[in-house]
Amino acid sequence: MASIVECVPNFSEGRRGEVIEAIADGIRGQRGVRLLDIQADASHNRSVLSFVGDLDAVRAAALAATRRAVELIDMNVHKGEHPRMGAVDVIPFVPISGVTMEECVGAARRLGREIWETLRVPVFFYAEAATRPERRRLPDIRKGEYEGLREKLAGLDWMPDVGEPAPHPTAGATVVGARAPLIAYNINLASEDVEVARKIARAVRESSGGLANVQAMGVRSESGRAQVSMNLLDYTRTPIHVAYEQVRLEASRHGVDILESEVVGLVPLDAIAESARFYLRLRGFNREQILEAKLME
Amino acid sequence: MASIVECVPNFSEGRRGEVIEAIADGIRGQRGVRLLDIQADASHNRSVLSFVGDLDAVRAAALAATRRAVELIDMNVHKGEHPRMGAVDVIPFVPISGVTMEECVGAARRLGREIWETLRVPVFFYAEAATRPERRRLPDIRKGEYEGLREKLAGLDWMPDVGEPAPHPTAGATVVGARAPLIAYNINLASEDVEVARKIARAVRESSGGLANVQAMGVRSESGRAQVSMNLLDYTRTPIHVAYEQVRLEASRHGVDILESEVVGLVPLDAIAESARFYLRLRGFNREQILEAKLME
Repeated sequence: MASIVECVPNFSEGRRGEVIEAIADGIRGQRGVRLLDIQADASHNRSVLSFVGDLDAVRAAALAATRRAVELIDMNVHKGEHPRMGAVDVIPFVPISGVTMEECVGAARRLGREIWETLRVPVFFYAEAATRPERRRLPDIRKGEYEGLREKLAGLDWMPDVGEPAPHPTAGATVVGARAPLIAYNINLASEDVEVARKIARAVRESSGGLANVQAMGVRSESGRAQVSMNLLDYTRTPIHVAYEQVRLEASRHGVDILESEVVGLVPLDAIAESARFYLRLRGFNREQILEAKLME
Repeated sequence: MASIVECVPNFSEGRRGEVIEAIADGIRGQRGVRLLDIQADASHNRSVLSFVGDLDAVRAAALAATRRAVELIDMNVHKGEHPRMGAVDVIPFVPISGVTMEECVGAARRLGREIWETLRVPVFFYAEAATRPERRRLPDIRKGEYEGLREKLAGLDWMPDVGEPAPHPTAGATVVGARAPLIAYNINLASEDVEVARKIARAVRESSGGLANVQAMGVRSESGRAQVSMNLLDYTRTPIHVAYEQVRLEASRHGVDILESEVVGLVPLDAIAESARFYLRLRGFNREQILEAKLME
């Protein structure tokens, strides 16, 4: 495929297997996309599906899955642990390769209009697709949840970005957007002192003045080591090796070395290649030189 | 595709475009392979084709291309600058991902038998597929070239590995084997003193007691820098970062730092991932965690 976009929609159904399968079939039925993962959580009563393809195919699959969910889920009877405001709660587009964030924002905006025009579900745009700063964060948009939606939409502050200011009678509202891929990255220290990991986490995370796009906390690893557990929210701006080197530097203040690090789950090729590029001081290296990447062109 | 094997056959025709195209069509006609590159050299009168696919598809395509070349090339009238002993001079199988060297050796041996059984061209096995040490190096097998082949095959030392000890009347003999992918890797020094690059090259290359699987020479780069120009003949045994660090260490003896490095041409994903794994001390990291690699499964 020429470009790869990942889409990770969240649906408000985590118990009825036949409904989740019907939604998944909406994705599987779209030529040019590949469904990678289905995670259904019964206590959250919510499912997260992950699929990839080029921009047009992913948008079409997201619309097909949304149609199934709007038909099959009634938010008036939905209960679950996880906050939600619609049958299709959130649809993020994630650029993986050969596609820009701007193109993903464009696709998100277009999907939002299609959802309103064909299904009459009002839509908010969030993250990189947000139309104003106070709509960037999903929790802010979702505050009040489905039950508070009618009142929220009626106010001037929360007019939907697309559609009329009233919830769909059974599907509520949907949030669509674009964001960078998140990398879950843990560093184990050659120490069992969790307090050191907590100090390092405070020093490296954005919220307390450290690296941008980095969330971090100090915990104990399964093997008993002090661990700095991080989310790298935008590796294109704050790469893996920058987080690694910053943790190494902070750890050295405590006389502690890095034992090892680990990537949890999936990571884009560019994120790994960028670290090799940094340490080997590679010049003029591009992903088309990686044989497997060339094969995907 | 589940596994990726690269095949880089060399044919003794670099001038007649219609013959080269007919050979290429033999590869294109095989389902499951992808032709990446055709390099025809008129002065060598030789073409190098590069294609990928899984083991069975690549073997079938190599046999189809060999059949075309045996039909269309007459070595009795062939002239060119490059040494050669057959219409299909050499066919290396190169494991790229999801396949072992042993499996490539097996495929090479099987292809060799098929070439003899269907086309009556005698075959030698070389490199990792060699049946004895003196047949590992291609130049040793090819010595005497096509013109000396009848006499060479008649001797006891050079009985073919498959087939009768006489050349095919127009196609000579063919060499089939398996080898690791070669990485062309250059390191530019923060110096214009080529003599320093030559000293470093001598220290790091296998032939003068340095790193195994590394060829190196000191040259001047296009930008005027002192450059250590290397071939990494087996990155699975001697990875990129080992060559980089060894050059860095030797350069430091001369008070010189590394300015930058460059990969020339294609490089397997695993070679790049291995360097990231080394510098980030990644634990339990496997290529299926790279999103693009997962998509190729």
